[in-house]
Amino acid sequence: MAYFEHIKPITYEGRDSNNLLAFKHYNPTEMVAGKTMEEHLRFAVAYWHTFTGSGADPFGEPNMIRPWDQYTGMDLAKARVEAAFEFFEKLNVPYFCFHDRDIAPEGDNLRETYKNLDEIVAMIKEYMKTSKVKLLWNTANLFTHPRYVHGAATSCHADVFAYAAAQVKKGLEIAVELGAENYVFWGGREGYETLLNTDMKLELDNLARFLQMAVDYTKEIGFKGQLLIEPKPKEPTKHQYDFDAATTIAFLQSYGLKEHFKLNIEANHATLAGHTFEHELRVASIHGMLGSIDANQGDLLLGWDTDEFPTDLYSVTLAMYEILKAGGFTTGGINFDAKVRRGSFEPEDLFYAHIAGMDTYARGLKVAAKLIEDRVLDRFIEERYSSFKSGIGLEIVSGKANFHTLEQHALQNPVIRNQSGKQERIKALLNEYIFRY
Amino acid sequence: MAYFEHIKPITYEGRDSNNLLAFKHYNPTEMVAGKTMEEHLRFAVAYWHTFTGSGADPFGEPNMIRPWDQYTGMDLAKARVEAAFEFFEKLNVPYFCFHDRDIAPEGDNLRETYKNLDEIVAMIKEYMKTSKVKLLWNTANLFTHPRYVHGAATSCHADVFAYAAAQVKKGLEIAVELGAENYVFWGGREGYETLLNTDMKLELDNLARFLQMAVDYTKEIGFKGQLLIEPKPKEPTKHQYDFDAATTIAFLQSYGLKEHFKLNIEANHATLAGHTFEHELRVASIHGMLGSIDANQGDLLLGWDTDEFPTDLYSVTLAMYEILKAGGFTTGGINFDAKVRRGSFEPEDLFYAHIAGMDTYARGLKVAAKLIEDRVLDRFIEERYSSFKSGIGLEIVSGKANFHTLEQHALQNPVIRNQSGKQERIKALLNEYIFRY
Amino acid sequence: MAYFEHIKPITYEGRDSNNLLAFKHYNPTEMVAGKTMEEHLRFAVAYWHTFTGSGADPFGEPNMIRPWDQYTGMDLAKARVEAAFEFFEKLNVPYFCFHDRDIAPEGDNLRETYKNLDEIVAMIKEYMKTSKVKLLWNTANLFTHPRYVHGAATSCHADVFAYAAAQVKKGLEIAVELGAENYVFWGGREGYETLLNTDMKLELDNLARFLQMAVDYTKEIGFKGQLLIEPKPKEPTKHQYDFDAATTIAFLQSYGLKEHFKLNIEANHATLAGHTFEHELRVASIHGMLGSIDANQGDLLLGWDTDEFPTDLYSVTLAMYEILKAGGFTTGGINFDAKVRRGSFEPEDLFYAHIAGMDTYARGLKVAAKLIEDRVLDRFIEERYSSFKSGIGLEIVSGKANFHTLEQHALQNPVIRNQSGKQERIKALLNEYIFRY
Amino acid sequence: MAYFEHIKPITYEGRDSNNLLAFKHYNPTEMVAGKTMEEHLRFAVAYWHTFTGSGADPFGEPNMIRPWDQYTGMDLAKARVEAAFEFFEKLNVPYFCFHDRDIAPEGDNLRETYKNLDEIVAMIKEYMKTSKVKLLWNTANLFTHPRYVHGAATSCHADVFAYAAAQVKKGLEIAVELGAENYVFWGGREGYETLLNTDMKLELDNLARFLQMAVDYTKEIGFKGQLLIEPKPKEPTKHQYDFDAATTIAFLQSYGLKEHFKLNIEANHATLAGHTFEHELRVASIHGMLGSIDANQGDLLLGWDTDEFPTDLYSVTLAMYEILKAGGFTTGGINFDAKVRRGSFEPEDLFYAHIAGMDTYARGLKVAAKLIEDRVLDRFIEERYSSFKSGIGLEIVSGKANFHTLEQHALQNPVIRNQSGKQERIKALLNEYIFRY
Repeated sequence: MAYFEHIKPITYEGRDSNNLLAFKHYNPTEMVAGKTMEEHLRFAVAYWHTFTGSGADPFGEPNMIRPWDQYTGMDLAKARVEAAFEFFEKLNVPYFCFHDRDIAPEGDNLRETYKNLDEIVAMIKEYMKTSKVKLLWNTANLFTHPRYVHGAATSCHADVFAYAAAQVKKGLEIAVELGAENYVFWGGREGYETLLNTDMKLELDNLARFLQMAVDYTKEIGFKGQLLIEPKPKEPTKHQYDFDAATTIAFLQSYGLKEHFKLNIEANHATLAGHTFEHELRVASIHGMLGSIDANQGDLLLGWDTDEFPTDLYSVTLAMYEILKAGGFTTGGINFDAKVRRGSFEPEDLFYAHIAGMDTYARGLKVAAKLIEDRVLDRFIEERYSSFKSGIGLEIVSGKANFHTLEQHALQNPVIRNQSGKQERIKALLNEYIFRY
Repeated sequence: MAYFEHIKPITYEGRDSNNLLAFKHYNPTEMVAGKTMEEHLRFAVAYWHTFTGSGADPFGEPNMIRPWDQYTGMDLAKARVEAAFEFFEKLNVPYFCFHDRDIAPEGDNLRETYKNLDEIVAMIKEYMKTSKVKLLWNTANLFTHPRYVHGAATSCHADVFAYAAAQVKKGLEIAVELGAENYVFWGGREGYETLLNTDMKLELDNLARFLQMAVDYTKEIGFKGQLLIEPKPKEPTKHQYDFDAATTIAFLQSYGLKEHFKLNIEANHATLAGHTFEHELRVASIHGMLGSIDANQGDLLLGWDTDEFPTDLYSVTLAMYEILKAGGFTTGGINFDAKVRRGSFEPEDLFYAHIAGMDTYARGLKVAAKLIEDRVLDRFIEERYSSFKSGIGLEIVSGKANFHTLEQHALQNPVIRNQSGKQERIKALLNEYIFRY
Repeated sequence: MAYFEHIKPITYEGRDSNNLLAFKHYNPTEMVAGKTMEEHLRFAVAYWHTFTGSGADPFGEPNMIRPWDQYTGMDLAKARVEAAFEFFEKLNVPYFCFHDRDIAPEGDNLRETYKNLDEIVAMIKEYMKTSKVKLLWNTANLFTHPRYVHGAATSCHADVFAYAAAQVKKGLEIAVELGAENYVFWGGREGYETLLNTDMKLELDNLARFLQMAVDYTKEIGFKGQLLIEPKPKEPTKHQYDFDAATTIAFLQSYGLKEHFKLNIEANHATLAGHTFEHELRVASIHGMLGSIDANQGDLLLGWDTDEFPTDLYSVTLAMYEILKAGGFTTGGINFDAKVRRGSFEPEDLFYAHIAGMDTYARGLKVAAKLIEDRVLDRFIEERYSSFKSGIGLEIVSGKANFHTLEQHALQNPVIRNQSGKQERIKALLNEYIFRY
Repeated sequence: MAYFEHIKPITYEGRDSNNLLAFKHYNPTEMVAGKTMEEHLRFAVAYWHTFTGSGADPFGEPNMIRPWDQYTGMDLAKARVEAAFEFFEKLNVPYFCFHDRDIAPEGDNLRETYKNLDEIVAMIKEYMKTSKVKLLWNTANLFTHPRYVHGAATSCHADVFAYAAAQVKKGLEIAVELGAENYVFWGGREGYETLLNTDMKLELDNLARFLQMAVDYTKEIGFKGQLLIEPKPKEPTKHQYDFDAATTIAFLQSYGLKEHFKLNIEANHATLAGHTFEHELRVASIHGMLGSIDANQGDLLLGWDTDEFPTDLYSVTLAMYEILKAGGFTTGGINFDAKVRRGSFEPEDLFYAHIAGMDTYARGLKVAAKLIEDRVLDRFIEERYSSFKSGIGLEIVSGKANFHTLEQHALQNPVIRNQSGKQERIKALLNEYIFRY
């Protein structure tokens, strides 16, 4: 059956206009910087926002009545799979992502929950056989159910830790079953509300134990995908342990886990932590840990995770710049962890929103590729740091300098000629590239 | 000569009231938790805010005319030393802290600057002989002079790196000369304004090289004090590399420098990074890196470093709680990196402000000690995490559990009974302790 | 039946300890500044947070299972009334507040909804006969139902405006029926998500029309209570029209509605708008519009409305100071628009939380009264502004000065002697009052 | 003499490329929406940032050494005038703005200060005779000098009020002398640091008295320009009275001053107050009070007034949209209250930065004009609110409806069909317009 009957497959404007519902910039087969757009922009639809999202907010009831809402329980779960694959194909998107609870409801007990999952996973696997759509990553929802009120791997209750372990164990098995290219850990309630009742050290130790067990289990079952951790500073918990990229890296280093993980960087999580998206990408990249991204955007005048579809070309261009400079995605991709606004409650809005995001990324890719090709920033930066290519600068970077030789240099070179960082000039250039390409 | 003629030494209210200028809570000889208050609360006066601070702000000229402002150049520098020691003694504070540029002006060239420093350092050393006041830490000002416009150790210009090295070399020598218990690195402009013109990787590598050279030099000259890094997320630079405790730890770990450094945690820097003060202290403590603190407070409705004197008893109590739980200070102390408001421009305000801060810390110490003595939080936390003392919980923390055993546990224990975290109850208790002790 | 069987009525510690569940500071009959505490602190329980709140958050399912949750529909509504009155009496609180949808569910149509409301209102009225508890205010929920997705009085759809009008009409009738002392308007979705699709002028005009109709209707039905508007800057809507006190006053003035309304100031809404609670109270007070307060507190490191129970004695003392200086409440009171944390999901936490809030307000009241009695701030302020009592200052405030006479004064009085604002000294004094009283 | 010798006049790329220093989009004679670009975009250079700005920040000394810095005192003031007119002409900008203290230094007393001003004003007037550059507005600096530590018109000291009055009196006379099209009031320290020492009511009354005297004086001296108030929420003062547009309007209404003033809206002040720039413009516009703008941009991840040159095309397009919809500027214009970054310390950067800002505004103007011409948003909004054109909607807006008729409507029309607000679709459309035009 069709859930989006009136929507024809969305194509590129240059080929087939299809009224309003067409891509303006995203042309999957167009070559950019040596690869097709589709190879660069491994777009994924987020199952939760698009197929189980209801429009509810802290002050509002669900207001998005979807065609599949006529069903309940496992029938609803199945209808969503059907709708999802229809959506993926009409949108021509190569990947999707899900939490375990997005695709199948919890049963009365864990065993029944497993059964529900198995049934839907089998159905999805069947659909995937005849579809080009692949699973970018899956993850476990360890935050919605009341049992996780005090966290999962960092819960104060050992039974909860055990339950979470069972859930992730199953999740990794599903990842293998469906050929997921990655598996994600997002610590929704892995943090604290107040230090007054929290043993932070024990909780961090436990989190490390949990992740180590997950690593062990991937080896046992032969999961070949990449494990990813997704930093977020706060919400729902007041303070989450994976605050940002640097904090997550500090944690992984401290517990000897760094080699097993990469990061899934989300734009809105970056801004909630006080960073730009490109900053977080750069930090991950420097550590060789840039794995994948959650593509959305926040509203910097609001203090919560608004998860808007990404339409800000400045942010997206700079993100694609970091990604291209890091060599592009390997197992990772661009997951639209974004939801249509509560006011955009019609099914058509789901298409508009994804098109808006995909087109913005397509344009951002092209601008970033052109910036790199023309060496606009590279040239400026090379020149700016050129003093480290010879003389005392070369001694510094090659490890030959020490405080004695540097002091001698300083004593003998009293006049230092700095040069302008030309920020305004570069921003104007960036505008020209964004407008033109 | 006397710069604060009309101020008599400030004493404890219980002993000598001295009108308004008396401590209400800080009684240096009073025993708290096995040590005197003075041993716990190793207060330090910040030379910059108190003796060179002018009241200027981005929209205002200097408005604090001090008695020593009748002098200029080296005469001014000497007058400040005299005033400082008068101030220390009247306030009965055991420590002070300074940047190189606070105590002596730059000369026409580096050699002359050294000469200025040597002269003032000798004078300070002479004063210290007959004073109980000691140097908690000194540091180098690598951000005020135009040469540091693009950073110091992370400058794009090798000459600037060399100059900064010379400055820190001299600073470490001064630390030895004056018996500093610590030496601090605060990366005022070690960060970036925009990634568009920044080679972050090179800058971080250089920062690590710089710190390694400093470590090497301390060994060479036999500096026995503790090296400290002070995190701050932003201001003056848009993004500073030592964003917060976790980020700084990640950096030190990545470059193999962790063992050589501890952290100097500042309250207002914590809040600018989106953390509570106690959070940053706990993070440092867990890593064995809680070195010293900069005692001030910010205004969370403002977005810049207001550096107010600490008067919020909630924050101070929780800070002292973390410090006591970490075993108290060893080389570290409580440096008032705080400035009187522009509107508090009279010399007397310098005393009022320090008394306000010292009394708040004294009271916070007593409340924290009582909370620990009564095991108010410890008891609650022990009970809360008790499931990790036996059964599956013990298996988890002792490394015997794995995803298989945990899944079995979850399958066999379907009903999980969480207990309330009782945050409101604990906050009410905390209020009672703050009010009563 | 009893829903809180194991809880005995909560009393004042001085009279009857009742284990942990006793007030430490709130003693209703104690005299403070000429009135009993109960007369000053007209506490109200918020029906929504305490009897319909579920613990759900954007990432979590309901986790607070209450004794009355065994019922559904109208039976649930009735059970809540029973529980509520039991709660009010055990807590000895004199007031409550509700939205229409808190007390009775919507029916299949508006007429049925009215019927549900009538039934519950009658039941509440019956309970009120034998209880000392009164209705501080009621209001209409114009934001939860999907029909209000684009606002209510500011909806883009006239049918929604009409529906909202019907709901408020009924609300005002209920206010009369139950003798409410006030009726509140909170514009949950009266604002916009983006100006790109918004006719702000029409929406503001419509909001004014709506309020004028409400004023007209109160006259028609003889409602004697006070109409209140509750400002909030954002959430759920990105930008709400009643941003803060000043904005709301500007709106009421522009549409000639000012005389008919006072403000209901909420602590957490103040901080979300970038103001302190006391600022908003002062602004309302200066305009003679300080009506009532919503007593809670936010977390200034988080960017959303956390609605925590108020335990910060600084904020509460300064709030009570403003309220006492404004002459105390007339029709208004202290409504705990506060919810227990998700982690505090046990019924007992509801009592702990209210006790924490009531005790904090009781203590704040006492401190504020003492500050006023001792004229601590008044004396300082009088002295500070004394130059306006004579000479050129008196000419200024009495309207006799003009730019000519002022210029002459300035030319003849070249030296201006400002005095310190002594902020640190005053903050230390405030600490002493908070600790001691 | 020439201060920018190596810079040739900047022209439009289409006519004369002049290497990097050319406008790409700003072509003064190009027609847009019925007027030339120059007529629409009444650009002004801010004297303070461009000719007296030093690059100093709270952690850094002045680092921008300008050619005119070889002079001091009145010679410096004169050199700046020469440099300014050279700059205006090379940049082809039609307006400038200044504070009294930007153009001439304070003398030893007020009379001498007047003399200094008179001399420079005469010089500027002479330059203006042979230049097309006009004075958009001038203002008085009532915040930098120590006398204004506690405010000016809201100082606690009557002598300060008088001094400020003399300064504004002179400022208005200068405005007449130089034919200023507006005169601006920005309340730099008109606010408070803490309510604990503040009589807010008296301060607001005094502020109103001050403004009324200014209004009276403009009539006396025949100043025909527009009086403008510039809102800002905080910085330097913790809380400024002119928090935002709505607060300023509330104040002016309360004191019967509204008709005499319009607003000067600054982008970065809007964001500091929690609003978008376009929101503040809309609020002003609805009240018929949109006077002029300060064109800059803030960094929403930083909490202070960064005053960056405007390069964000989203914000600028929406600002120009509001301005065009409000009928364009009459006396107002686009003042670049923006400073080059500390790192951009070379004189050339002053040109780059203004070109970046002017080009961004030029492009924003064209996009906004096209959006209006194509009725992109208007059409959507008309359709969205069409229910108010007939039936119950028409009754509402024409004042015929009341709660009775609305309730009847609601009872008879139980099913409400809302339509999507299509935010994502509109944002994608906006992107297309920004990219294409």
